[in-house]
Amino acid sequence: MRARAPGSSANLGPGFDVLALALALYVEVEVAPAARLSLRTEGEGADLVPDHEHLAVRVAAAVCGHDRFDIHIRSEIPLGRGLGSSAALAVATAAAVGAADPFSVAVGFEGHAENAAASVRGGLVSAALLDTGPVACALALDPALVFVVLVPDRQLPTEEARIALEAQVSRADAVFNLSRMGLLLAGLADHRQLVGAACDDRLHQPQRAPLFPEAPELLARLLKGGALVSCWSGAGPSLLGICVGPTAAAHVRDAGETALEAVGVPGRALVLSPDLQGLIIQH
Amino acid sequence: MRARAPGSSANLGPGFDVLALALALYVEVEVAPAARLSLRTEGEGADLVPDHEHLAVRVAAAVCGHDRFDIHIRSEIPLGRGLGSSAALAVATAAAVGAADPFSVAVGFEGHAENAAASVRGGLVSAALLDTGPVACALALDPALVFVVLVPDRQLPTEEARIALEAQVSRADAVFNLSRMGLLLAGLADHRQLVGAACDDRLHQPQRAPLFPEAPELLARLLKGGALVSCWSGAGPSLLGICVGPTAAAHVRDAGETALEAVGVPGRALVLSPDLQGLIIQH
Repeated sequence: MRARAPGSSANLGPGFDVLALALALYVEVEVAPAARLSLRTEGEGADLVPDHEHLAVRVAAAVCGHDRFDIHIRSEIPLGRGLGSSAALAVATAAAVGAADPFSVAVGFEGHAENAAASVRGGLVSAALLDTGPVACALALDPALVFVVLVPDRQLPTEEARIALEAQVSRADAVFNLSRMGLLLAGLADHRQLVGAACDDRLHQPQRAPLFPEAPELLARLLKGGALVSCWSGAGPSLLGICVGPTAAAHVRDAGETALEAVGVPGRALVLSPDLQGLIIQH
Repeated sequence: MRARAPGSSANLGPGFDVLALALALYVEVEVAPAARLSLRTEGEGADLVPDHEHLAVRVAAAVCGHDRFDIHIRSEIPLGRGLGSSAALAVATAAAVGAADPFSVAVGFEGHAENAAASVRGGLVSAALLDTGPVACALALDPALVFVVLVPDRQLPTEEARIALEAQVSRADAVFNLSRMGLLLAGLADHRQLVGAACDDRLHQPQRAPLFPEAPELLARLLKGGALVSCWSGAGPSLLGICVGPTAAAHVRDAGETALEAVGVPGRALVLSPDLQGLIIQH
């Protein structure tokens, strides 16, 4: 069985641990029964050791109770960059081995319900961890929006990014993020309402900036290049600029490439459409 | 000049200090030039002293630099109940004396940008206080939704309700509210996505419950009566149940009336449509 899932950009500024947007960057996982485990990876992640510690093997084994599979992964999603590669791989693998609920399987392994939800449903999603399990719902996304992602060549592991976050926050900062998330969801539903402040955040981006000191300058240059808003993608180091239309996106991509060079961070700038299909399973 | 503005229900559970929904309960303010101040009020608030401390007089004087007006107020919005009566009165008065931006005037007086935004724009809004001033945007509201409001006869002044709120909150609670606000906005845009957890809150309702100990029981009874979600309206003591369609709303209203009797809180249960027009100015 074969399954494909998109990567995603989580948090989107104020929506820390909650919002995610599926992007047209995919991982495809093909699984066939075999006498013993064999794992091949093409594209991103091909350098990972194909042993029992590999996420795809752990997911397949957890779903099926054994690992006697021939697993073939083709991925376009850069790893450790805040583009939801782990959630997408977990979702696609769980689906490819026949899991009834790939979303819950992926959340169980990977923890990020928002990335997993985007990989399963596509589009813009909001996730929550309820007592009964993870849930997610779809939010409106204006089709005029185009996304520019700066992908630095360096990795920034999520665990390291999370250590930077304090356990207590001020009520004012919590309300700050709630209010910007309201503006952001209104603006993502209708770009005419998208104001620059909609991606402002006080819960994670300022705290993580010391781990990626060039980020504020890069985010500012995305705005200067024509993005309506800019923010970290997930826990970084990828950064996201949101634009209206392909012409603006091309400008923002160029501005992003120039900015990466200017601050001395090797990397790429990609223009990406949202993925609206989510998980696709081919029997 | 004459202006009419709707009352509103703020917070809506997770959207503390951010979300508000305009309700079809109105205050109308008519202002005419006069030799000296005269103020009449019909309906709700008619018992307030019509002197210079009255909110309408203060708003008119701030906008025009004098108070030589004949002001006539007709209000259906109960005062001090968490139904945005002050914001609606400030908006309508500012508009009736010709303020260029009744929203900003009202926020300056009353502080609640979310209530003021709902009174100006109607519908479901999200507000934020930016460095440049208050802003608000419109969010989608499923026309199938109907609102039941329990209005206790007792008042619960907002200032008192605010004292109950601690200045620091846990990051987990901040994320809890962000995640439920995502579910709520998805559910208010499309009732088929509206899950019970969408109105869960950890930032204000639990803290305010000691001020209104019957609230949790009343909220539970609204759900039992058929509301999809229930929450405090603003800082209370009014409570809101959100239903699909008029039949469900009638059931929830009956359940609400029974509940008020059962817990010994005198009050009313109202079925209200959202107001979608916001501020109306008649020259």
